[in-house]
Amino acid sequence: MYRTHHCGELNTKHIGTAVTLSGWVQKNRDKGSVIWIDLRDRYGITQLIFDEARTSETLMPLAKTLGREFVIQATGTVIERSSKNPNISTGDIEILVTDLKCLNQSKTPPFTIEDDTDGGDTLRMQYRYLDIRRNPIKNNLIFRHRIAQLVRNYLSEQHFIEVETPVLIKSTPEGARDFVVPSRMNPGQFYALPQSPQTFKQLLMVGGMDRYFQIVKCFRDEDLRADRQPEFTQIDCEMAFVEQEDILETFEGLTRHVIATVTGNDPGVFPRMTYDDAMKRFGNDKPDIRFGMAFGELNAVTQQKDFQVFNQSELVVGIAVPKANELTRKDIDQLTDWVKRPQIGASGMVYVRCLEDGSFKSSVDKFYDQDDFKAWAKITGASAGDLILVLSGDTQKVRPQMSALRMEMAERLGLRDPKVFAPLWVVDFPLLEWDEASERYHAMHHPFTAPKPEHMALLHTNPSAVNANAYDLVLNGNEIGGGSIRIHDKTTQSQMFDLLGFTPEEAKSQFGFLMNAFEFGAPPHGGIAFGLDRLVAILGGQETIREFIAFPKNNTGRDIMIDAPSAIDQNQLNELYLNLKTIE
Amino acid sequence: MYRTHHCGELNTKHIGTAVTLSGWVQKNRDKGSVIWIDLRDRYGITQLIFDEARTSETLMPLAKTLGREFVIQATGTVIERSSKNPNISTGDIEILVTDLKCLNQSKTPPFTIEDDTDGGDTLRMQYRYLDIRRNPIKNNLIFRHRIAQLVRNYLSEQHFIEVETPVLIKSTPEGARDFVVPSRMNPGQFYALPQSPQTFKQLLMVGGMDRYFQIVKCFRDEDLRADRQPEFTQIDCEMAFVEQEDILETFEGLTRHVIATVTGNDPGVFPRMTYDDAMKRFGNDKPDIRFGMAFGELNAVTQQKDFQVFNQSELVVGIAVPKANELTRKDIDQLTDWVKRPQIGASGMVYVRCLEDGSFKSSVDKFYDQDDFKAWAKITGASAGDLILVLSGDTQKVRPQMSALRMEMAERLGLRDPKVFAPLWVVDFPLLEWDEASERYHAMHHPFTAPKPEHMALLHTNPSAVNANAYDLVLNGNEIGGGSIRIHDKTTQSQMFDLLGFTPEEAKSQFGFLMNAFEFGAPPHGGIAFGLDRLVAILGGQETIREFIAFPKNNTGRDIMIDAPSAIDQNQLNELYLNLKTIE
Repeated sequence: MYRTHHCGELNTKHIGTAVTLSGWVQKNRDKGSVIWIDLRDRYGITQLIFDEARTSETLMPLAKTLGREFVIQATGTVIERSSKNPNISTGDIEILVTDLKCLNQSKTPPFTIEDDTDGGDTLRMQYRYLDIRRNPIKNNLIFRHRIAQLVRNYLSEQHFIEVETPVLIKSTPEGARDFVVPSRMNPGQFYALPQSPQTFKQLLMVGGMDRYFQIVKCFRDEDLRADRQPEFTQIDCEMAFVEQEDILETFEGLTRHVIATVTGNDPGVFPRMTYDDAMKRFGNDKPDIRFGMAFGELNAVTQQKDFQVFNQSELVVGIAVPKANELTRKDIDQLTDWVKRPQIGASGMVYVRCLEDGSFKSSVDKFYDQDDFKAWAKITGASAGDLILVLSGDTQKVRPQMSALRMEMAERLGLRDPKVFAPLWVVDFPLLEWDEASERYHAMHHPFTAPKPEHMALLHTNPSAVNANAYDLVLNGNEIGGGSIRIHDKTTQSQMFDLLGFTPEEAKSQFGFLMNAFEFGAPPHGGIAFGLDRLVAILGGQETIREFIAFPKNNTGRDIMIDAPSAIDQNQLNELYLNLKTIE
Repeated sequence: MYRTHHCGELNTKHIGTAVTLSGWVQKNRDKGSVIWIDLRDRYGITQLIFDEARTSETLMPLAKTLGREFVIQATGTVIERSSKNPNISTGDIEILVTDLKCLNQSKTPPFTIEDDTDGGDTLRMQYRYLDIRRNPIKNNLIFRHRIAQLVRNYLSEQHFIEVETPVLIKSTPEGARDFVVPSRMNPGQFYALPQSPQTFKQLLMVGGMDRYFQIVKCFRDEDLRADRQPEFTQIDCEMAFVEQEDILETFEGLTRHVIATVTGNDPGVFPRMTYDDAMKRFGNDKPDIRFGMAFGELNAVTQQKDFQVFNQSELVVGIAVPKANELTRKDIDQLTDWVKRPQIGASGMVYVRCLEDGSFKSSVDKFYDQDDFKAWAKITGASAGDLILVLSGDTQKVRPQMSALRMEMAERLGLRDPKVFAPLWVVDFPLLEWDEASERYHAMHHPFTAPKPEHMALLHTNPSAVNANAYDLVLNGNEIGGGSIRIHDKTTQSQMFDLLGFTPEEAKSQFGFLMNAFEFGAPPHGGIAFGLDRLVAILGGQETIREFIAFPKNNTGRDIMIDAPSAIDQNQLNELYLNLKTIE
């Protein structure tokens, strides 16, 4: 037993108690005749005091040698502090040390172990074990644990069973790229790591498990975009004998419970929006509805005049930025440059100032009159003092451009408050999307998603028009969950594979087990999966998932702390019947 | 909404209620004018009734077509049954069906969906989704979930934090063989799948996380012995600022809580036994102490006479089998054959019958007299009516032989009651074991285990004599957990790697990150890991872990349901810079 208490629990009630604490030296203030040491552990900081008058002679010299991050064990008596620190729970007391042991020394850490560290990202990743000593990272990991426990206990109470599905499974070229694992016992053959437990959870429904969940690692060998990880964690869920409404209710309940518990505020009933509406009103299938600035489509009120830019556009769309008339001409010019950057790609931007006197002033004054602008203001919902920003072009391009502009304006106006949580269901996703490059349909959600029953006939005649019982849960502009009602009969599943360009042989070799299963009494079923990393980050008021992962990888998929991946022995390769190709 | 109730909840209180149920047809008894269908879901079975007098004409023909495992939805009224079934919770009622829908058909399942199925192991694995519909498997998976939840909630209440450690890590040739994962983004390099999160949990302790746990998948590419799986689940735990006693207390608390909750009986304080004692008294480091038959070492009382077999043996050891004097001569001959089988390998067996009148009768009567046998009986603890069985030979060989015989006798006598739980700590394991084949020391637990402080000096002079603060938790003769106090300083860790035959370069390239971490204030720490699969199986009164895994692999590491592992595309190999070797 290295301690009787931890460093976060002692207060004036303990005065006079003999205690032993262990932890790390946060700070050593040596004033000659008095030494104060801030001792830190996971739970807090407690001040130790050594002074010539009261401390045994032998301890003072030892105390002086203790540097930052040394690990020590100190025994002493809790006494009242003369100069109290109201910022920490132990700030009223200190420990007059009577016995002291250095348990381990420390080299000077490469960055400060403080809330605001001086360490850059790379250094922090390389010494992640030191980074975890910092409160922000430590608290993020504890927060993550708390959310996972909340989810597990809530779902367990709702009779969901957590079932572990296998990690060594089968490679399926559909979807993202698989990580593969060569099998030594089955030469020339490979396992794959799951991109999700999708087929297994469906088989559990066929198996009558009824309500399944799992908090589970998933894997995607994708070129990593910013803040993507090759391994990530899903809250994976599935239910049998349900329709879409049952799933939405169940998991709205879960999400509400989590948000309410974390924030203390019940977010109430989640609004719902169709995919089409989301695209039309926000240019985006995961709109952030913490703020307004919904799109106003202006074709009808802009294409009657001589402004050819608008007349030739498929879509003219505007947003009313609240109170933004105060932007200067220079501000607006900069904003125009911002939307013209290659990342956004707009060809230009039109603005209309809504003046306090009810009149308008615009960059296209010579083409439109005050009545025109009045109509624009009505459609975009602009009031006096607002600034209407208008983009135009091909619908497929201008919507994401306007969406980016809307988010940028919200950011600049401080409307993206990380303490406000605005969940939203987006429903009625299209079943398929046409991919120009491969000249075939791709599954918008995944190949197991069921078409809406009323759209089944369209599957032959107009596949693009088929909607699915597929839904996303959006929180503050991030997709935190997505799911669908699944196909549960072999015929529809075969038809779907056919539409997606699988030959019957390919479908059979890759998903034969699932289609077989559908012939033995598969129940109607559906589910959802949440991205735990992102959910936790957003609930924690941040957007960088790496800060909520204990040992994340960098953007090339490397763990720079342990230096993985790395070369392996020729022996290992031989056992796996593999040769490395020469890399040119 | 496919149902208003599930198939396990309706009883006489619901009589007169209109309900809708969904599930699988367990049985269809068609008596012509009356049809009964047993409808099954995860929660139970409810009887549906259709009869000519009360059921609409259109339903009867449909009801007749419903075969085993068809998925149906039935609406009707709860009525009292004329012939009640006291064996099921819904046995007092049935549903008079007014509406019926067939949701999906089923081919005839390849084995019966009954508690005692007619399906063999291979067929059950191939159609695991049907096997899971059977109560024994379904209930095992639910039981597993319950245990995992118990563990998580208990440890969380004790301020343990579940931290997810990475799955894509680094290959280390020490220990068992790693599964490796080629990295596309880092050509020629490989990740490895963790055999355990050992180094990461130690880094979390260095990181101040203080109390960590994780229920986590681990991977070993070993030739599979019976009932081993290439992927398995650990309850992995670590604590900082602890000594062995703290760990034993904490995890005895956890295990007691789980056993008490599952069985309703508190198993009390767990006994402890040193490794040396366990080997001496039970020939085994994981003794089953649900029954006695401890070994009596008989050298002193057997080697004074002319029986050369004993005189030339390093160890003569006996057990007293209770009430086994009733065995016939033929029984004992068969037992002698049993110990002489190659799997056991004894050269012979001596017996002594302890007769009811206090005298003895033995196969070595001509070498020993009644006083000798009295001494043997005293040492083995034999009473009148018992049978003493004696083996002899080299200590290293005769102990496991006698251990096997002891277990066999216990099995035959019905002493291995799966409803009795006898936990036991085995402590003071040796740090190292000498491996004849490789002519070097191997770590008995793992290379991170700390020598006992009082044995540190022996590390140079007599490594074999060094004990470790290492411990196993044994339940009913199975190791369910094992752990140790870890090394937390670079010098000892280097010394240990040296003893294990690592060059300093190898140690640095494989474990440099850990040794670096030890230089930045590593706290004393230690931990334990439980095998969840086995723990759950034993608590469930069984020993086959496969029955507690949703989708297990067979003995060649194959998932025969999904047919994995399997060949992958040449494209995939190209992207990974790999070639398959020709397999000769």
